[in-house]
Amino acid sequence: MKSNNSKFPRVIIIGGGFGGIQLAKRLKDKEVEVLMIDRHNYHTFQPLLYQVATGALEADSIAFPLRKIFQHQKNFKFRVANVTQINSESNTISTSIGDFEYDYLVLATGSETNFFGQKEIEHYSMPMKTVPEALNLRSMILQNFEEAVMETDEQVKEALLNFVIVGAGPTGVETAGALAELKKHVLPSDYSELDFSKMKIYLVEGANRVLPPFSEQASRKAQSFLEEMGVDVLTNTMVDQYDGKVISFKDGKTIRTNNVVWSAGVKGAVIPGIDKAQIVRGGRIKTTTYNLIEGYNNIFAIGDVSYMEVEKFPNGHPGVAQVAIQQGQQLGDNLIRLINNEEVKPFDYFDKGSMATVGRNKAVVDLKFWKFQGFFAWLTWMFIHLLFLAGFRNKLVTLMNWIVNYFSQDRGTRLIIRRFNRQTMKEEAEAF
Amino acid sequence: MKSNNSKFPRVIIIGGGFGGIQLAKRLKDKEVEVLMIDRHNYHTFQPLLYQVATGALEADSIAFPLRKIFQHQKNFKFRVANVTQINSESNTISTSIGDFEYDYLVLATGSETNFFGQKEIEHYSMPMKTVPEALNLRSMILQNFEEAVMETDEQVKEALLNFVIVGAGPTGVETAGALAELKKHVLPSDYSELDFSKMKIYLVEGANRVLPPFSEQASRKAQSFLEEMGVDVLTNTMVDQYDGKVISFKDGKTIRTNNVVWSAGVKGAVIPGIDKAQIVRGGRIKTTTYNLIEGYNNIFAIGDVSYMEVEKFPNGHPGVAQVAIQQGQQLGDNLIRLINNEEVKPFDYFDKGSMATVGRNKAVVDLKFWKFQGFFAWLTWMFIHLLFLAGFRNKLVTLMNWIVNYFSQDRGTRLIIRRFNRQTMKEEAEAF
Repeated sequence: MKSNNSKFPRVIIIGGGFGGIQLAKRLKDKEVEVLMIDRHNYHTFQPLLYQVATGALEADSIAFPLRKIFQHQKNFKFRVANVTQINSESNTISTSIGDFEYDYLVLATGSETNFFGQKEIEHYSMPMKTVPEALNLRSMILQNFEEAVMETDEQVKEALLNFVIVGAGPTGVETAGALAELKKHVLPSDYSELDFSKMKIYLVEGANRVLPPFSEQASRKAQSFLEEMGVDVLTNTMVDQYDGKVISFKDGKTIRTNNVVWSAGVKGAVIPGIDKAQIVRGGRIKTTTYNLIEGYNNIFAIGDVSYMEVEKFPNGHPGVAQVAIQQGQQLGDNLIRLINNEEVKPFDYFDKGSMATVGRNKAVVDLKFWKFQGFFAWLTWMFIHLLFLAGFRNKLVTLMNWIVNYFSQDRGTRLIIRRFNRQTMKEEAEAF
Repeated sequence: MKSNNSKFPRVIIIGGGFGGIQLAKRLKDKEVEVLMIDRHNYHTFQPLLYQVATGALEADSIAFPLRKIFQHQKNFKFRVANVTQINSESNTISTSIGDFEYDYLVLATGSETNFFGQKEIEHYSMPMKTVPEALNLRSMILQNFEEAVMETDEQVKEALLNFVIVGAGPTGVETAGALAELKKHVLPSDYSELDFSKMKIYLVEGANRVLPPFSEQASRKAQSFLEEMGVDVLTNTMVDQYDGKVISFKDGKTIRTNNVVWSAGVKGAVIPGIDKAQIVRGGRIKTTTYNLIEGYNNIFAIGDVSYMEVEKFPNGHPGVAQVAIQQGQQLGDNLIRLINNEEVKPFDYFDKGSMATVGRNKAVVDLKFWKFQGFFAWLTWMFIHLLFLAGFRNKLVTLMNWIVNYFSQDRGTRLIIRRFNRQTMKEEAEAF
């Protein structure tokens, strides 16, 4: 048992995502001891995972060592561990490296891929929420092309070349666009033995338009960008089954494919020990307006894993980085207020807008009073993503890659560093 | 069976290292069909693997897609496969993806780590000849620091912090220097809970000086650089045993360590099917002066796997990139001469010199008529390595990393992307 020997209360933050980092930073130089626990020793910049999966960026340029962020924060400690249980009656958590006592506990665990209970789809399709998952997807795509070159059965070859991306949120749209660019500019010269007119990219969405949370103008434009680039967009289409070879939809349509990317939904990454009555839609945990989990007096949830119903957001806040960032900052201030017996302030989300990129010179940006698409939107998207990417080295390397990719129309990291193997991938994910 | 349906003879090159690439390039636009087979879809720039292992560079900037190198070479084909057997009587090779017929076969398979038959050392120490091995080493180093933070037993903690690098060739010297820089500039701020005066770095060499193939002047200077940086250099020291916790030497000395990097030797990466009588010292294959394996008329070996005795090199050529590059070029020309029934020319190695870097502003360069050390040697080392690194993107990203590392004294990629696990590492290595 790691007790708190400091004279200050101990705040344990589970998760080093956007929310956890902001919260910990906000507690700098305050009279608390901060302990952050994450399964990884790095922060993942999830918005760019799709560029890792499609060979445009190195994994290492969108991951940033968590210890480095807090090098100069004296009241901060970090541990790499898997948290297995919250024991609220004893104010402790159980982890893969032992138990820890807390005075305040913050769940900043984010979200995980939601397969809606469909085990077969979970087994055969590729999620993309972590760096290892993005690298697995990159390897799988390239291995399937290597296999297609050798394949003589036309149907099997077709399945190796076809891609189906399920879910047309920003991740789905961006992945489909990046694959279309690979198909147009990169793959034909790498695999001159293959007929690329046979490679199809399908983007499948259950709603009636791509980017459902965006403005209709952005949706329309994103869809026309995708279609220009050769992506088949299937809206109002729900997946029925996928057995690793053929994906079938509720409307009876089927597509032969070995490559299904699953970006159709997320659910809160909940740790056992939280009262199940507080876990609501999307596996998120119900909190008060200052992120306290209902029914507890010292356990909080922020970001994707939290569910806060307010007038402006009757179904909870969107699962985006900005909500996590702002909740982390706000909770940091509120924790200090709580400790000082001051009144806490309710969270009020300031929506800075949304954006998604489809391809070269093609992006959509929705701001509150201004919606624009095309080249300037694409520049804005790049600028904002560079701005939020942690660390000078990462920004610089990412910018260099983008410049080279832009002028060469190439994607330099099409490497199978570790072979993808469905079995070992699943074991690896479960082991930790 | 993949027969050769082209009207030109088929040259199969096994291995996309320095030698294989040069050979294939030399055959561009010639009347041959070239098929390259490699276990990986990328070329590895082995001289910089140690920078990947020590968090200075991304893996993706020292790996280059092999298909990209030959995009514009029409007579070139590539396959990712593991070659399991050479069947010289039928002029075929067996691979993990089927059999292939050849007219000319070139083994450019390079070398692999030589543990000199010591199974226990092989199990517990870390080789560094491939990108996945360098990434495993990076993960292991960082995991051991994370563990040391938690450890309360002082002896166990000491073992987690101590490093022993066995073999003081360029790789060993460079790794020891890079670890000394991590210890000095990076780790203490990441792990402020640890006492870094307890971290020791030992560089162990059986010969009486570091960098044995270099000039004595270079050796002396490299050793004094290392000692300045806090590395304990143990020459005339042979490893006896290593059980994962304690390494013991023939002179009876022991060091408690969980971190042993094995760079003490290599052996030729030989494929079954070659007459064992031709396999000589260091597991290399004996060839004529134009790289034909003795006893065969259409099977060749170049680079590290080949052993060519000439007057200037009575024990074979050194296992360095330059030999592989020059032999690849020469064999390319000789194959065309053979096909045209012209006389082949014997190989004559032009030694361009050797260099190794120890740390910031510290390197040694041995040219034929000029030996120099220090800052200018370090600049030369960087320039030459950038020059030989394949691809503009890789050069640019590497240069950016070096500039950032130089000014920040930091190492940005200290990431545990995939956890190191001795068991799965071994399985992975054996599986492919």
